[in-house]
Amino acid sequence: MKVQRVDMFVCPLATPADTSGLQALADAGKIKPDTLVALVGKTDGTGFHDDWGRIWADIALREWTATFLGVPKDDVAKHVIFVLSGGCPGVITPHIAAVTREWVEDGKPATEKRLAVGRAGSESIPPEEVGRMGMIRKVASATHEAMKDAGITDPKDVHLVMVKVPGLTVASINDAESRGHTVVSHDLTFGPEGAGSYANDGAALGVAMALGEVPESKLSDAVVRRDWDLYSEVAMTSSGGEKRHGEVVVFGNSAASVSPLVIGHSVTKDFIDAQGVRDALRSAGLHFNDGLPDEKDLSRLVHVFAKSVIPGTDQVRGQHITLLDDHNAYQIGKALGGMLVASVTGRTTNYVSGGERNSHQGPPGGNIVAAVVRTE
Amino acid sequence: MKVQRVDMFVCPLATPADTSGLQALADAGKIKPDTLVALVGKTDGTGFHDDWGRIWADIALREWTATFLGVPKDDVAKHVIFVLSGGCPGVITPHIAAVTREWVEDGKPATEKRLAVGRAGSESIPPEEVGRMGMIRKVASATHEAMKDAGITDPKDVHLVMVKVPGLTVASINDAESRGHTVVSHDLTFGPEGAGSYANDGAALGVAMALGEVPESKLSDAVVRRDWDLYSEVAMTSSGGEKRHGEVVVFGNSAASVSPLVIGHSVTKDFIDAQGVRDALRSAGLHFNDGLPDEKDLSRLVHVFAKSVIPGTDQVRGQHITLLDDHNAYQIGKALGGMLVASVTGRTTNYVSGGERNSHQGPPGGNIVAAVVRTE
Amino acid sequence: MKVQRVDMFVCPLATPADTSGLQALADAGKIKPDTLVALVGKTDGTGFHDDWGRIWADIALREWTATFLGVPKDDVAKHVIFVLSGGCPGVITPHIAAVTREWVEDGKPATEKRLAVGRAGSESIPPEEVGRMGMIRKVASATHEAMKDAGITDPKDVHLVMVKVPGLTVASINDAESRGHTVVSHDLTFGPEGAGSYANDGAALGVAMALGEVPESKLSDAVVRRDWDLYSEVAMTSSGGEKRHGEVVVFGNSAASVSPLVIGHSVTKDFIDAQGVRDALRSAGLHFNDGLPDEKDLSRLVHVFAKSVIPGTDQVRGQHITLLDDHNAYQIGKALGGMLVASVTGRTTNYVSGGERNSHQGPPGGNIVAAVVRTE
Amino acid sequence: MKVQRVDMFVCPLATPADTSGLQALADAGKIKPDTLVALVGKTDGTGFHDDWGRIWADIALREWTATFLGVPKDDVAKHVIFVLSGGCPGVITPHIAAVTREWVEDGKPATEKRLAVGRAGSESIPPEEVGRMGMIRKVASATHEAMKDAGITDPKDVHLVMVKVPGLTVASINDAESRGHTVVSHDLTFGPEGAGSYANDGAALGVAMALGEVPESKLSDAVVRRDWDLYSEVAMTSSGGEKRHGEVVVFGNSAASVSPLVIGHSVTKDFIDAQGVRDALRSAGLHFNDGLPDEKDLSRLVHVFAKSVIPGTDQVRGQHITLLDDHNAYQIGKALGGMLVASVTGRTTNYVSGGERNSHQGPPGGNIVAAVVRTE
Repeated sequence: MKVQRVDMFVCPLATPADTSGLQALADAGKIKPDTLVALVGKTDGTGFHDDWGRIWADIALREWTATFLGVPKDDVAKHVIFVLSGGCPGVITPHIAAVTREWVEDGKPATEKRLAVGRAGSESIPPEEVGRMGMIRKVASATHEAMKDAGITDPKDVHLVMVKVPGLTVASINDAESRGHTVVSHDLTFGPEGAGSYANDGAALGVAMALGEVPESKLSDAVVRRDWDLYSEVAMTSSGGEKRHGEVVVFGNSAASVSPLVIGHSVTKDFIDAQGVRDALRSAGLHFNDGLPDEKDLSRLVHVFAKSVIPGTDQVRGQHITLLDDHNAYQIGKALGGMLVASVTGRTTNYVSGGERNSHQGPPGGNIVAAVVRTE
Repeated sequence: MKVQRVDMFVCPLATPADTSGLQALADAGKIKPDTLVALVGKTDGTGFHDDWGRIWADIALREWTATFLGVPKDDVAKHVIFVLSGGCPGVITPHIAAVTREWVEDGKPATEKRLAVGRAGSESIPPEEVGRMGMIRKVASATHEAMKDAGITDPKDVHLVMVKVPGLTVASINDAESRGHTVVSHDLTFGPEGAGSYANDGAALGVAMALGEVPESKLSDAVVRRDWDLYSEVAMTSSGGEKRHGEVVVFGNSAASVSPLVIGHSVTKDFIDAQGVRDALRSAGLHFNDGLPDEKDLSRLVHVFAKSVIPGTDQVRGQHITLLDDHNAYQIGKALGGMLVASVTGRTTNYVSGGERNSHQGPPGGNIVAAVVRTE
Repeated sequence: MKVQRVDMFVCPLATPADTSGLQALADAGKIKPDTLVALVGKTDGTGFHDDWGRIWADIALREWTATFLGVPKDDVAKHVIFVLSGGCPGVITPHIAAVTREWVEDGKPATEKRLAVGRAGSESIPPEEVGRMGMIRKVASATHEAMKDAGITDPKDVHLVMVKVPGLTVASINDAESRGHTVVSHDLTFGPEGAGSYANDGAALGVAMALGEVPESKLSDAVVRRDWDLYSEVAMTSSGGEKRHGEVVVFGNSAASVSPLVIGHSVTKDFIDAQGVRDALRSAGLHFNDGLPDEKDLSRLVHVFAKSVIPGTDQVRGQHITLLDDHNAYQIGKALGGMLVASVTGRTTNYVSGGERNSHQGPPGGNIVAAVVRTE
Repeated sequence: MKVQRVDMFVCPLATPADTSGLQALADAGKIKPDTLVALVGKTDGTGFHDDWGRIWADIALREWTATFLGVPKDDVAKHVIFVLSGGCPGVITPHIAAVTREWVEDGKPATEKRLAVGRAGSESIPPEEVGRMGMIRKVASATHEAMKDAGITDPKDVHLVMVKVPGLTVASINDAESRGHTVVSHDLTFGPEGAGSYANDGAALGVAMALGEVPESKLSDAVVRRDWDLYSEVAMTSSGGEKRHGEVVVFGNSAASVSPLVIGHSVTKDFIDAQGVRDALRSAGLHFNDGLPDEKDLSRLVHVFAKSVIPGTDQVRGQHITLLDDHNAYQIGKALGGMLVASVTGRTTNYVSGGERNSHQGPPGGNIVAAVVRTE
């Protein structure tokens, strides 16, 4: 029986265009053209709309990957999924995580489920479906396909679903309206009523639907960015105007994997909840008890993926905070998420992605944290 | 024998000019005109140079206090020391802590040292002494006097020393130079070579000298903001051009106190060291072991005072961070300090003051944390 | 016959709470309790959402005015209209312009129309009408009443209409929705689809309707912030959640005025159009020809009121600009408006108010400029 | 006799890495490998310390040029001087100006001096000389050499001198101090006392000395960034830690040039002085009188180079401005300079470089403006 062997390698990036870490992995044979399935990273820069660091990184990493795979640049996306989140304020080290999957012959019965990864593209999502049921259903379908690709059947085994979907643009709005459709928003930002936030949250609810976190009966256009009690605990989503369909990567544990890694997840219950981060590590198999992980535990930690959506209210545990009024609230919020994770993991190479204010990615006021741990 | 009874009350501020919390304490008899000795707080606003929130708070609080004490506004500073730190980015709730000291007759022998507070003004510090040995020695003297006022003899019993000293201004530089003196810097900012940083650090070394943390023999003009191995673990200092002498407030534990409170302190060893925050709580008498404080422990926590000086290097535990390059590095650094403390204390009403890049306030890369705990 | 005598005095503000300039005017008898009708100013601060400078100025100015008028603070708004625009980035001197109106007996026939001012409150505007036809019609009515109060009948004599209207809040949205109504936006910001922008633009279209700049037949809910060819050349509007009805102040020229002042206006055709500023000065009676105003001309200039709405496109005269992508686009845009005006007027005490991206206040890409000139 | 023919072409940049404009010039034969002498441009981005847009542009443009010239990347700087100024806030279109110089046989006597360009490298400038007389003298020498290279003998014919010099770094400071030398500042920023500002201003005074704008007798280490009455009207300088010697490019008019272009310059007398910009255009040969350039005049304008150093005082024409207190003062100051120029030139593709607060580049409070005009 062919089973998968998934691995993950984290390389710091000295500059946005730094591919030396990937090259070293390639030279060492740790990543190969036919095993590299995803590059997920944080890029140096402001994280604002005009963050050229992220754009430069995207171009440089795709160029390197094209050369590495021996394929034209435009074909890279067929082989490797890129998730680059811009902005490393504070204590988030710019880095790239390379995810590899190899198919190996294995006769032994699995004693423990191990890290598996699966990918799928969704059907085309037209602009009038962005942030609405059309998108939700198509992302849900693609999530099911990606689970199948990962060899995962039980939704409980899914611990992280990264999704990229189309956003809206001036052109795509015109297209939709010229065909007699409306769009979810004319605001092309990631603000509270921005199309970007609707797109991200449509995708999150698609994952929630696929995994049974939210029953389809509760879903409608009207609940998106309105009913915050509906959410996924494992969906990290992003959107961009240039895309035409969704891309889904599922990370979970499978009996059909012989990976040395295991994944787990938890959520923070509010913005200062370090316990939620510790719970994610514990979920992935770090065996500390009520207290703290020790250094040996942490040495087995491969990577943490966390969101840092800023809360919708100005209260944390009964006290007023002024974050929502801060001019740089999204940047500061991302920085704070980075600190919360780093203060637990004892390292700064954590994937912490921010952006929205309120989201269906995680519970109201809280955030998603997934952790990957080496078993050996 | 007269002994002191020190208490501390923390009031959130809804706006910079919100005095309702103080008024409620006054109405309840918890603070009285003759017991109020200090108001220490964080004010809503950006924390930048032109932060009108802090200035408005300063005016409103002084006005309220003048009325409360029944003295002219200009005399308020003789009775009550104000330490207002501007900027509450992220998860720092704007608040004011009122410190009271009452002298009570007490015949019982002390079983445990308790919170004591003492104040002293320094001799006049001319501009040519700012950030130099002149300031260091005068702050050291004033620290000794404030310890005496607090009834503390052993420097080990001192856990927090707040100091305000003169900075430099265009006018005071002209004054010094017209008298044939040089000044430590012509840069009037709090940047790496700014007069504000030199003033703050001169004050910190003064405390370090007074407490024997740094021997006088190692001190000279040349070490200020150069030899980072010389530092105080308990000095939190600030400076302003309008002052002519230093003001020192010492917080420590004394056998001649019957306060229900105890103070302790520790330092973080780097920017993500939550353990340093936990150690400060433990130092003040929260009795958790290697792990975490529980809710009962934290319910006894009255207040935390922490610095969040940004580090002088771009490395945290061997990894590169981009904080030093962030355009808003000081604001983000302060926000991160707030998160580090809040993630341990489970609350957002923590005093976290930032500002400099590198400082003699705390060890290189790390920061000072002091905690006040209720014993009952 | 009673005719009005309107005057205008511009005082720089040293701090947000500086009332010394107003007091000096009062001491000199230039403003009197029964002649002061409006205070219009720019306040020191960031101009961002959490700009405490503006809030402090508002409180301090209202307190001063209450004392000056001898009325309770809450009654001040019945007598004097306050328009305070926060944020003075760059070369905009914080200042307050006091507008006075006195009724004097005058038998002489008017030889030239002179500055007149009129005020009116609108009917109550419920949240469901904000940014929609309900608001537009009520502001139009109030504009007609204010014209009547100003003694102006010909819309061509109106050169500046300042309007304050209700915005939306969480509470007012809940109120509207609980009564079965929808609201124009759930985004409470001044972003492109924010309720604040809709409110401001509803008010602007109300003025445009009243003055015949846009025929009522072209107006509907659907055109607000969609059809940019509909606009007013004289409406400067603002909105705040705390208000329940609109307030309108009309500035124009009237034969029933013996003011020493005259007002005029023009618009800039794009963001760098200094000619539009010069045209406004010329419209108000500065008699330079194709070239530039000379110093004698400018010495007659009393004040300039300008908007600096940032454009909706990233093109200026065929070239790409990056302003729309700037993280601080609104602040920079306001600063640029201040420079455009100052480079023409040769002074920095100009009222330049920014905020929206695209607006019905002025033509697409351009902005409104009104100028008040002393005739003698 | 061989005479030079200098030309200048301005290409907007759609992204930092956009070389399509240069390629089009190359394809059209307007720039050739052996005629390209300088690329001077503004790059998209924040202009802050961590502006990856500028860095990406630098790499992309050097790569393109290496290919164009057919030389290794590391040799590009021997052939073409790059001056890339980051940050295009407001109305500054990102662009690159290509400067070409061709040597042609020409027997005709010159009727009018035309644009000439010359380059020279300075001797090596060690860290202890940065911002001091050592740098000043070496830049002065190099300026003389560059004038010779340009065929200019009369300093009055020099209208723009672009200089790049070494700044300081942690490593170079250590180097200087290990050899027993001091350095001008330990502050590695471009703040008021930053090494970057000292380096830039040392270079500016070097130009001023070379051109006789400041007599050598008035120059000393002590006047740098202290005596603002000493300045150059034509020096635009920048510095970077990576350099070891200075590079100078002189632009002026020479009888030994048959360029179709002429250059001129003037200075603004303060931050809102549009007249200074108009004077620069007039100096370059646009023949409008007291008033304004008309469209025909402006159609002959090839390019404007301006500095936008923010002033050292908070007064403009007797009124207080708050720019110096703005958190983003340098960015806003640069934006304002861009507006001042664009409001005169009627276009946004102007080179406007900002950065320092106070400088010997231009008079106190004012700035340098140079203009290049096509004669035909």
